[in-house]
Amino acid sequence: MENQLQIYNTLTRKKEIFEPINPPHVGMYVCGPTVYGDAHLGHARAAITFDIVFRYLLHLGYKVRYVRNITDVGHLENDTDELGEDKIAKKARLEKLEPMEVVQYYANRYHMNMEQLNVLPPSIEPTASGHIIEQIAYVKEILSNGYGYEKEGSVYFDVVKYNKDYNYGKLSGRKVEDLLENTRKLAGQEDKRNSFDFALWKKAEPKHIMRWPSPWSEGYPGWHMECSAMSSKYLGDRFDIHGGGLDLLFPHHESEIAQSNAAKGQDAVKYWMHNNMITISGQKMGKSLNNFITLNEFFSGKHEALDRPYAPMTIRFFMLQAHYRSTLDFSNDALKAAEKGMNKLFEIYNSLDRLKASAKSSVDVRKYEQLCYDALNDDFNTPILLAHLFDLSRVINQINSGKETLTKEDIDFVKNLMGTLLFNILGLRDDHEKDDSKLVEYLMKTILDIRQQAKENKDYATADKIREELEKLNIRLKDSKEGAEWSFV
Amino acid sequence: MENQLQIYNTLTRKKEIFEPINPPHVGMYVCGPTVYGDAHLGHARAAITFDIVFRYLLHLGYKVRYVRNITDVGHLENDTDELGEDKIAKKARLEKLEPMEVVQYYANRYHMNMEQLNVLPPSIEPTASGHIIEQIAYVKEILSNGYGYEKEGSVYFDVVKYNKDYNYGKLSGRKVEDLLENTRKLAGQEDKRNSFDFALWKKAEPKHIMRWPSPWSEGYPGWHMECSAMSSKYLGDRFDIHGGGLDLLFPHHESEIAQSNAAKGQDAVKYWMHNNMITISGQKMGKSLNNFITLNEFFSGKHEALDRPYAPMTIRFFMLQAHYRSTLDFSNDALKAAEKGMNKLFEIYNSLDRLKASAKSSVDVRKYEQLCYDALNDDFNTPILLAHLFDLSRVINQINSGKETLTKEDIDFVKNLMGTLLFNILGLRDDHEKDDSKLVEYLMKTILDIRQQAKENKDYATADKIREELEKLNIRLKDSKEGAEWSFV
Repeated sequence: MENQLQIYNTLTRKKEIFEPINPPHVGMYVCGPTVYGDAHLGHARAAITFDIVFRYLLHLGYKVRYVRNITDVGHLENDTDELGEDKIAKKARLEKLEPMEVVQYYANRYHMNMEQLNVLPPSIEPTASGHIIEQIAYVKEILSNGYGYEKEGSVYFDVVKYNKDYNYGKLSGRKVEDLLENTRKLAGQEDKRNSFDFALWKKAEPKHIMRWPSPWSEGYPGWHMECSAMSSKYLGDRFDIHGGGLDLLFPHHESEIAQSNAAKGQDAVKYWMHNNMITISGQKMGKSLNNFITLNEFFSGKHEALDRPYAPMTIRFFMLQAHYRSTLDFSNDALKAAEKGMNKLFEIYNSLDRLKASAKSSVDVRKYEQLCYDALNDDFNTPILLAHLFDLSRVINQINSGKETLTKEDIDFVKNLMGTLLFNILGLRDDHEKDDSKLVEYLMKTILDIRQQAKENKDYATADKIREELEKLNIRLKDSKEGAEWSFV
Repeated sequence: MENQLQIYNTLTRKKEIFEPINPPHVGMYVCGPTVYGDAHLGHARAAITFDIVFRYLLHLGYKVRYVRNITDVGHLENDTDELGEDKIAKKARLEKLEPMEVVQYYANRYHMNMEQLNVLPPSIEPTASGHIIEQIAYVKEILSNGYGYEKEGSVYFDVVKYNKDYNYGKLSGRKVEDLLENTRKLAGQEDKRNSFDFALWKKAEPKHIMRWPSPWSEGYPGWHMECSAMSSKYLGDRFDIHGGGLDLLFPHHESEIAQSNAAKGQDAVKYWMHNNMITISGQKMGKSLNNFITLNEFFSGKHEALDRPYAPMTIRFFMLQAHYRSTLDFSNDALKAAEKGMNKLFEIYNSLDRLKASAKSSVDVRKYEQLCYDALNDDFNTPILLAHLFDLSRVINQINSGKETLTKEDIDFVKNLMGTLLFNILGLRDDHEKDDSKLVEYLMKTILDIRQQAKENKDYATADKIREELEKLNIRLKDSKEGAEWSFV
């Protein structure tokens, strides 16, 4: 099948044929999590959106280097007053808050969540704190090209100067003139020439824990700097795809574009991709609205807004039912519907092994291949793809009930097509096995009850047969007065 | 129970009462993997040894900050000849080998292995490449104290100079005089004053990919430097425990001691701990001997030296059956015996729930608590601990068979003691559930066979009862001519 993948490019505001800069290689950079808290639906949506892009590009045969960063340079501060009371504690490294311990804890939990959601690990997952040298070098380049200025140990990006030579705002559509009118002087912004100038390097306040030496001060890099420096290091000064949530478009991605032009004289990114936001019952998600639900809360069901727990695959399927550039409204009903739909598809897929083949096919199932890939090639349109798979499922049901027929070859074709799409490209996973430990207990209880009943009915043939069957599975029964017990041999 | 934990300190060559520098805090640093290949038994032994230390210290109520590094600054080189032929490739960042991609791949696999072995993640897992600034600062301190010298862009540690003020060799027992006699000039060592001087910073050869700017050259830190710099950053200039494999004792740990004295004027570590090596059928493990078996090969059974696959918990139990300071000889028979022993303990533990309580206890089970903790407190003597648990299991068996009796309270005591020791402290996990997916299929097949038989016997009551029981488990039966099919609702 011909590759006609089209990607909506936020920069040009239109769908474009995907043509990598250096085929068969593809470089992709996605803004990862800030690891000072548990991941929520917003993190899941970005991760799943670009997991589909990653999986589909791999499926198309590209060699993809996928870089997703971890933002671990945050703003944790020592409470110096409290520590000041205890001079021994001041000396003891171990008694101080260590930001990297917090970072490690939440990074581990994030990775666990990603594994639960069946999101593939990126090729490289660099941390901001691990690339201070590269960020300092990048800031130096901007300074030497005249687009930054130092003030009191901090370095700022000169937006007005830059905008004379380039176009600050070309990604978000904002204009510097409007920014000038709409911003006020804020406290602590006195060092900047303009309030919308952004920090490339910040001198650390005394309370700030994370700090590194630099030519300008002991401090830490500005937020936008890590993505420019790390994407340049691992993907080069010009690469194919940069992704992230729509909330990062301005100022983060706009500033990344400015930084790369200021330092390297060119745009770093060919295709900018942004996934849209999640609303909860129509409202924006936010900590103040008490509708801020973490993934772990979804999986356990422990949040007042949730009727019950939802499996990671339900969350994933729910996300895939909307196009990544549409907003997606969460509700209990929507999740339950997603779960039902997904299980239906799995059931149909599993039924294919038992489907009876006929000499002739009475329906055309081959057309679904083109339809499904057309959907994917149309800017990763997963809801349309799923609609085709549901159509195909209805066809399979008709064959199940004898209304239509398929040849062996066509059944194999459907099995292969559905398997590739559901599991390889959409990254779904039939998780029924996850609860199997409990299920084994229940099933064993059911079997032992039947055997007990058989014995009471003097049906020893059945009772013995059950014992024999279980022994084949290395399960040993021990009869006692209270009934049978079982254990693995 | 009184805490009388004693730890064998490699530095003093004797067991010492464990007294943390700054209780209740404990700082522990362990040398982690070099992530350029899959983990093998040696990695597993170090990880499990210090996982037991970590778990037991947590159990004793200490606040442990456990740092285990990842060595990702390696020696990957570009093959310049090959690249030289293709000038486009030379320009394309994406077409070059990216060491961090290799690092990420093997780090992910290492983490997966650790999870399979139920090894707890450390509090902080810093990478060498992420701490170049800290390492450069450390080298500067050594230079300014006069214990290092620069030559041709590289910096070396002056062992002879250091040995005049301190004692190089106090950990390993080696003497500098002997080192002087026993070493020869090797190629590429011309820059050093003495062949046993070690690099603190190396100027990168043109082919070397991983390189960073420094005051001396574009290069990379010496191997011993990362552990000194990262332990100092996260645990302070003096901390409690430093662990690693015995193969790291010299020159790695010896050089760490030298570095910390040279830079900070004091030993960094109070207790040095070393786990012993693994032999395979009496031979040293090594790539050239073809007895180098990765953990993944153990888990899959795919290695000519293996009779069959071994579960991660079998590997873990096998390791715990030897004291960490003894060598441990691997063989198929030893692993099979370990598996059998472990399953026996799990079976006994699981049988406690079904154990019949009596009014009086005829045996003293309370004494096992002291015995077990005495073993742990004796330098983490897990084989002795397991011997006590096997003794206790024999007692439980006698109660099972009615030869001895226990009260409800004593049964609960045993349950609690065994559970804490087996699962919390020894970190074992009853993994029978792992194969449950297949088991569910077999059990369902057994149940459906019984139901089919019942229907053929016109025993519809049983057939219906089976259907009802399964429906409670959300399993739906669909009868057809070929027999019943089942699916989850």
